[in-house]
Parts: sequence; C-alpha cells; structure tokens
Amino acid sequence: MPDALAQLADLLGPRLVTTEADRRLHGQNETWYPETLPSAVAYPETTEEVSAILKICHAKSLPVTAYGAASSLEGQHLALNGGLCLDMARMNRLLSVTPEDLLCVVQPGITRKRLNEELRATGLFFSVDPGADASLGGMAATRASGTTAVRYGTIRENILGLEVVLADGTVIRTGSHARKSATGYDLTHLMIGSEGTLGIITEMTVRLHGQPEAVAAATCRFGSVEEAVNCVILTIQSGIPMARIELLDQFMVRGFNLYSKSALPEVPHLFLEFHGSSAAVAEQMASFGEIAEEFGVSGWQTATQAEERNALWAMRHNAHYASAALGAGAGGGHVWPTDTCVPISRLAEAVTWAQEKTVEMGLTATIVGHVGDGNFHVGLSVDPEDKAVMARAESFAHALGEKALSLGGTVSGEHGIGIGKQHFMADEHGTAVATMRAIKTALDPTNILNPGKLLPPA
Amino acid sequence: MPDALAQLADLLGPRLVTTEADRRLHGQNETWYPETLPSAVAYPETTEEVSAILKICHAKSLPVTAYGAASSLEGQHLALNGGLCLDMARMNRLLSVTPEDLLCVVQPGITRKRLNEELRATGLFFSVDPGADASLGGMAATRASGTTAVRYGTIRENILGLEVVLADGTVIRTGSHARKSATGYDLTHLMIGSEGTLGIITEMTVRLHGQPEAVAAATCRFGSVEEAVNCVILTIQSGIPMARIELLDQFMVRGFNLYSKSALPEVPHLFLEFHGSSAAVAEQMASFGEIAEEFGVSGWQTATQAEERNALWAMRHNAHYASAALGAGAGGGHVWPTDTCVPISRLAEAVTWAQEKTVEMGLTATIVGHVGDGNFHVGLSVDPEDKAVMARAESFAHALGEKALSLGGTVSGEHGIGIGKQHFMADEHGTAVATMRAIKTALDPTNILNPGKLLPPA
Repeated sequence: MPDALAQLADLLGPRLVTTEADRRLHGQNETWYPETLPSAVAYPETTEEVSAILKICHAKSLPVTAYGAASSLEGQHLALNGGLCLDMARMNRLLSVTPEDLLCVVQPGITRKRLNEELRATGLFFSVDPGADASLGGMAATRASGTTAVRYGTIRENILGLEVVLADGTVIRTGSHARKSATGYDLTHLMIGSEGTLGIITEMTVRLHGQPEAVAAATCRFGSVEEAVNCVILTIQSGIPMARIELLDQFMVRGFNLYSKSALPEVPHLFLEFHGSSAAVAEQMASFGEIAEEFGVSGWQTATQAEERNALWAMRHNAHYASAALGAGAGGGHVWPTDTCVPISRLAEAVTWAQEKTVEMGLTATIVGHVGDGNFHVGLSVDPEDKAVMARAESFAHALGEKALSLGGTVSGEHGIGIGKQHFMADEHGTAVATMRAIKTALDPTNILNPGKLLPPA
Repeated sequence: MPDALAQLADLLGPRLVTTEADRRLHGQNETWYPETLPSAVAYPETTEEVSAILKICHAKSLPVTAYGAASSLEGQHLALNGGLCLDMARMNRLLSVTPEDLLCVVQPGITRKRLNEELRATGLFFSVDPGADASLGGMAATRASGTTAVRYGTIRENILGLEVVLADGTVIRTGSHARKSATGYDLTHLMIGSEGTLGIITEMTVRLHGQPEAVAAATCRFGSVEEAVNCVILTIQSGIPMARIELLDQFMVRGFNLYSKSALPEVPHLFLEFHGSSAAVAEQMASFGEIAEEFGVSGWQTATQAEERNALWAMRHNAHYASAALGAGAGGGHVWPTDTCVPISRLAEAVTWAQEKTVEMGLTATIVGHVGDGNFHVGLSVDPEDKAVMARAESFAHALGEKALSLGGTVSGEHGIGIGKQHFMADEHGTAVATMRAIKTALDPTNILNPGKLLPPA
C-alpha cells in the first residue's frame, strides 16, 4: 500500500493528496452513509495519467474509486477499505461540439449545468437532468436519469461512445459518432451503469438536442395521489410527448413550502413541461388538459417565461433538501432517499402503497417522481443516530424494493445499487448475478475497481 | 459428435432432423455466401428444451447456431463447421400483451409482420422494420434497425428485457417491465447485437407504440443525390420528427421500376412518412416542404390511404430483390449488400463517394438508405461464379467500410459483422476487441455459441 502510494506520488506530484482534510472532503455523501475516508485522492489530468494510475493500482492491488460531483445517492463514489479516490475534477473540459451532428465530446468531470452553459450559443442542449449538478462521468457510471427522461431518454440513450480505462490500464474506445452501429458487443451500454466497477470513463461522446421553439411549464393539483397518477398513466398511454411530468405528494409540497418559501396548497401536484413548436405545445397542453379534467384537476398555473420555469424546476430540484427540511424537526434533517421504477400501469398501486406504508410505520416521508417513466422517490426523514428510526427506514426501503419487484419493476430507476441495494441483486436478477460476476472477473480479475459496490459479496 | 447428436435425438425425438433436405434448407442465405450445411437441425419448443440442448452441446463441444427467419445479410444464421442449427420457428408465440404498459412478451421465433397482425386490435404496433419479415430473436441478436428507427429507435431501444440461455444451459432473465432501471450490468444490451455468440434468446419483452392518429407518406425527387442528402441533413438537424426518411439513388429507382413495375423517374428520390395528430402531420409536412424547396425538390406525391402507403413501402422493402433484378443481366442476379453508418453531417460525402467509386470500379450498384440515421446500403450486383467481379465487390466493400471509419462512422449500421466483416473489427474497435473476447471467453469458455462469427480469429 505505501509502495503504491509512493509510486502514485512520483507520477502525480502534488496531485496526489493524502491530507486528512482532502480525504474527509471526499468521504462525504448526500445521504445517511457514514463518512468513509479514502487513503489518498488523485487528480489526474489526462487519459494517459488515468492509465498510468491504474497500472500501478493493478500491480499493487490498490482499490480505485472514481469521484465526480459526489451527488450519487447510494454511496457509489465512496472509496471503501482505504482505496484511492480518483477525483475527475481536472478532466472537465468540453472537448468539441459538432452541432450539425447534434453531439459533443466531453471529459467526465464536466457537470451538466456547466456543459449546458457552454452549449448555450449553439441552440443545443444536453437533456439528462437528474436534479443535482452531477458530473457527466458520474451520470454515465450510475445510469442517471431525471425529469426529462420521459421525452429525451436517460443517459443510456444519450451516449454515443466512451473512452474507458480498464483495470489493467488498457485504454479502449466504444461506439462512434454515428447514431447507431451493429458491430460488436455493446460495450458502451455495458459500461453505462457499471458504477465504476468495470472501467474508468475518461471521455464521452454525448447526444444533444435542439432547443425547442416553444417551452411551456405548468402546475396543477389533484384531490389524491391516485387521481394524479392515473392522469399520468393515461397521458403516457395517449402518447402525448411530455417533456417533463413530475408527481409531488402532499408531504413533498409541504417540504417545498418550508424549504423554498412557496405557498402551494398542500395537496398532490403535477409539475409539467411541454416542448415543441408553438402549435405543438398548445396542442399538447390542450390534450393533457382534457385528460386531467377526467381526474378532477384544479389550480392550473402556467409558466411560459424562462424565469418562472427556472424557479419552478429549481424548487423541484431541491426536493432532496426540501425532504430534509420537512424532517428537520424530527431528527438531524438527514434523508434516506430510495427510488423504484414500476410498469406505468402499476404506478398508482405502488405510490399509494408507499404512502400508506410510511404512515403505518410512523415515518416522515415525501414522494416525488419522474412518473412518466413509472419512477418515483420516497424521501424518508431520518436521524442516523436514532437506531430505531434507521431500522424502520431500512425495513421500509426493503419492503418498497420487494413491492416494486412484485409489480414487475426494479429496485432502482436511477439511484443505482452502490453500497445500499446489493441485498436486492439476487432478488431482482437471480441467476444473472453470476453472469455479471463472470464479466466483472473477466475485466477486473483482481477486483480493484470500486470494490464493494454493485455486486453483492460472493 | 455422433454422441452429442444421439443425445439430442433422445431429447427431441423427431424434432432433431438430419436429412440433407432440411440441412440444405438451413444452409442458404439471401446474399453471396456459399451454401453451408449444419450437421443437424433442432426445433426446440420451450426454454427448458433450449437449456437441455445447450447442456448437451456444452458437454460435447458441439457448436450451436440460432436460426430465425434466415434474413440476416452477413451469414449470422449459418452453422459453420458442422454444428447444430437451432431453428426457433416453433417458439413463435405472442405470450402476452400489456397495452396499458405499451409492451408485449414474445418468443424469439415470431416474425415482425405476424406480431403486428396479432397486435392490430390493440391499437399498438411494434415499430422496428428492417424490411425483411425477420424474426424478433434474429432482430435482437443482430441489433436490427430499419426504416422507422429515425423516429422510434432501433431494436436496441425497443427491448425492455430478455430471457437468455447461456452456453452451459443456465437460464437468465435481464431487464424488467419497467421503462428503465439503474440496477446491475446492462446484460440486455450486451446480448442485443451479440449475434448468438453469448447466449440464445428464448423470450423478449418488447416495447410497443400507439398507432398514430394520422399517417401520411410522400415521395419527392431531387436533381442529385447530394441535394437529396443535404435536404435530409437539414431536416434532421431541424428536429422534424420524421417517421421515415429513405434515400434511393437513380440506380435503385431503376431497380424498383424493373422489379415492382413502377414508372418512377430515374432520378434520386426521398420516400417519407409522417406520424402524429392530423395537425402535427400537416405541420411536419409543411416544415419538410420548406426545407426541400431549398434543395430544388420536385415531383411531390403524397399517399394518405393505407393501400397506397403499403404499396410504397412494399416497393422499398423489396430493394434487395430490386437490386438483384437490376443486376440480373450482368450476372446471376445475386447481390452483395453492404451497409455503413456515418455521422449525418458526413452523409453526403459518404454517399457521393460510394456512387463515384462504384462507377469507377465498373460495378453495378444501388444505394438506398435509412438516411435519417446516417445509414445507407450499397447493393452490388455480383455473380458469385465470376471471381473478378467478386474481387472488385470485396475491394469496394472494404474501401467503403474504411471510408465510413475515416468519417467517424461504423462499418455497419444494421447488417452486423457475422462472417463478412470480421476483418474490420480491429480497425473499428481497436483494443476493445480484446475486451469483447474476454467477455466471450467468460460467458462461453468452450466457444460453442455461433463460433466463427462476430469476433475475428484470435
């Protein structure tokens, strides 16, 4: 270990940091996982450096965990067992934009907001929006999603190719600048969502979308979560190309009012966005409005100005902190965030089950979700010091995952497995876990890449 | 070998066939590859049978090649070296439809036309349309695409999950009925496009789309291929949600006239389709029309009746046979079909290069393509007995692949690698070929699954 770190220090000079302050900074997370300090933090600047780092780590069996914006919610970025934290912050450039092909090439450390700022003059945008200002590398590694996935796809549909450094330092390139290909195994998608356990992403070719001619946002209210969700289900089944369709239950709205100083009526809401030509947006809104009438919609508010829309989505994006604000009275203001995704026809059943179960278990909880995909989050207010409430939160999160599986869904629509959901892997994937393990062993035989994540212990 | 076949005969009874007639039937292909007879043909009826077959083949090192509708164009379905042909024709049922989730579950032997016939009453359709009436299992295995991919995605975007039998007979399930998931390695996409070399697909969960309220097809003409392609490029860049946008060069149109007895002017054409509400279709057509005017469009014909549209697309789908008809005078009426896909901004350059090169090389060739994706086909008329023309065809196909790579594209947008394009794998994928080989070895250590396909010899 000291030998590996000495070699890394020789390679990186002052960009290998072992101070406690920096290690502590990199050991934090947005949720309830305890502080987890890496042995050292490396700040590579080039693919060649990442390759050289991995060669050393491979030879010396030093674990390596990539680190982006630390916004992951299942502890994916935490270096366990004293490994190396590979902070990609210095590899954060937009390398090229090809507007005529609706794509750009970026380094993994760039965050989605900065990318969109840099793209503004092109009339194009990067669509994937998980709320947090995540790094693109982290988004790829965790198969991120978010509010616009219903229209533009998750990160999975928005990456054309990757440059990846494998465990032994080999650099590979996947995909191309073409829209599609039928040549060879789909290593791009194998790497997306692998949580840094199969390789370190060092470059990404990313799809962009044209800024729509017209954008309109809206909010509306429903008498119950079930009515709101049934409105969503019919909207999606009707093929209305919603750009965003987000559910907020009454507790989430209360959290928004507390955290964002809004004064929304504390009943279930949908937050919506429509993209298209002016005529198309008007038609979509009218079609949605007709469906919503069937479910007793009220309080329809539209926001066509960019400032109003931005305020609306900023409020939505602060859901995690609003959940914390709601629970601040009850404990330390920590949130245990869990997410699942179910077939859309089972969404009302899943959401109402979750609401009733949290009440039954005496948990303070919010529900918010990318419901157009069947994906929703339950934010449980917890005090990590309160063992009883933590046990109940864990019990609820487990029951929710099993409920999603029983409905034909998945234990996570976008947060991933990380540390927190490995116990579900066998339940969700059965015999395929062994297949995943065989691939992991083939690509990382000494298990240096983010060990202790995604795959359950053998 | 005889021992393995004896065990298979015990298992399958009359559904293991070793007659020359059946072996010859399964040794044919749509293109120029020589007849290739398997040792025997198995007709499994259940996943359990496929698993039992693979256990025997695994134990006895008998190669296994899955066989669907035999419409693959790079010989993917041909059992080399006397292996077993696994004909999936008896596993061809639509197992369930869940209209409210826009999905169905099918067995791999069902063909796309039959699936759409069975779905008709639901108001939903399966969108992927490679022209041939391919089996869905074959489409998944070869990462098929086609005319509607520009709007609805390729098969890659239209599969939610798979049941797969691995080389040793283990049955795994990938994906779920939810739209997305962030849990575990993406084995669904690893299997899609693996050409039967990693597992045998025995069940598929497939996305469906709502029949659009309005559909309009149209054809129009341009003075040159370059003008037609530049019109396509600007259309895609403008974000018009084309349902289909197909280029036909003047030689392809001549082939259509010969084969389909049409009387189209023998100049470059675009064949188009628009889907949406009536208002949206009208708006899309008007927007496209404005762009097309810039490129000197003429001869605009619309087809709004289903019969007219069907006739139009039937003509397009017979492109392979129309290419053969065009070359029938020059040789045996065989076609060497090759395809590439490039970034859309490089499409005009690629297509005009291909046209000029075929003329320069004295080859009779057609160009037709799913140009909205940057994907096009060159159909070379060949006589497999004429060694000189075969050598020129091979030389052209190689040069076209290298040209596509030099433009940032791929050597195949939809036909795949199979037997015919392995020599490109290192050029396109570089060091990643070794990664693919490591995965192949991990999942199929004795190399019984479609050996001799996709990966070049070690």
